[in-house]
Amino acid sequence: MRVLVVGASGRLGSAVVAALAGRHEVVEASRSGENFVDLTNPASIAGLYTAVGRVDAVACTAGKTPYGALTDLTSDQWLAGVRDKLLGQVELVRLGIEHVTDGGSFTLVSGILSEQPVPTSPIASTVDGGVDAFVRSAAIELPRGQRINAVSATVFAEAWDAYGPMFPGATPIPVADAAAAYVASIEGSGTGQVLKVGY
Amino acid sequence: MRVLVVGASGRLGSAVVAALAGRHEVVEASRSGENFVDLTNPASIAGLYTAVGRVDAVACTAGKTPYGALTDLTSDQWLAGVRDKLLGQVELVRLGIEHVTDGGSFTLVSGILSEQPVPTSPIASTVDGGVDAFVRSAAIELPRGQRINAVSATVFAEAWDAYGPMFPGATPIPVADAAAAYVASIEGSGTGQVLKVGY
Repeated sequence: MRVLVVGASGRLGSAVVAALAGRHEVVEASRSGENFVDLTNPASIAGLYTAVGRVDAVACTAGKTPYGALTDLTSDQWLAGVRDKLLGQVELVRLGIEHVTDGGSFTLVSGILSEQPVPTSPIASTVDGGVDAFVRSAAIELPRGQRINAVSATVFAEAWDAYGPMFPGATPIPVADAAAAYVASIEGSGTGQVLKVGY
Repeated sequence: MRVLVVGASGRLGSAVVAALAGRHEVVEASRSGENFVDLTNPASIAGLYTAVGRVDAVACTAGKTPYGALTDLTSDQWLAGVRDKLLGQVELVRLGIEHVTDGGSFTLVSGILSEQPVPTSPIASTVDGGVDAFVRSAAIELPRGQRINAVSATVFAEAWDAYGPMFPGATPIPVADAAAAYVASIEGSGTGQVLKVGY
């Protein structure tokens, strides 16, 4: 298969590329690499698909949300987070439908915070909950046998030094475990599923 | 208690007002009534709280989302739906914290579509999923013992003629059942809960 990995330069993106590399043709896209894409800019997403051409799967590992106390976050920060990880991924699917082959798939990124919030996570939690629901709803409308799932992981061992204090008592997982869920989504048959990893 | 009902002129809002009227002081706000509020405009929400003063509970029944096929909806429609029912309710909470009494509560509206999507519902589904996750996350950060819940109902019997065809096999519920869930949220002790009604 030909797989477009969006956010390929990040920690999770790199792991997804590594998990797919031996078995599929991987096309990497990110804010910093060869195939530039900015999820907050629909024109940038459209340009990516035009540049890359037809693919069998789109795997998104990108999307940022601001963190902060509920009482400190501003409406601008809320809008920025929603436009990036939530509406950016919606746009990636919307604009990607015509570029993905019959029976192809989309795999998006959400996260444990939708179900298990922590202080300072309200934007991430809200966005992750939106992504999970979007995947369930898009699955019943995608044309030509296309599928869609989300990967929702707990905190990564590789990020534990930075994020561990936010998740007291959590058991971190190797980022490769989350990458394996992308492989399951891409090579499997499921659709409308939230693939929980490590929780 | 003094309860601010936002969206009081709508079907659900009217039912919530009726359920609360005998036992509480109800202040009604809507796009069309005495206390005007437009959820998509933070300045309008701030103005509402200034006009209304201190309340013990905020009950929101307002928030609109565009409906349409996944392949027809535009990015402008996505943004409009997210700004209205999702970010509008977030703003209602954010700006309301200082106007709600110690131990007071917020009750937001989501809906069955987050878990059980139907064709043409992707925006509503995504927004409802975001509201549910927001409620879980805000609950752990609200100050001074404030609580927050969401009411998530199936289709109303009173709206069955219009919406019934979208929900094949569903059993509609009286809107009064959803209003009762608002009473449970306001008078009860729960927080961070999604109160499912009729499904």
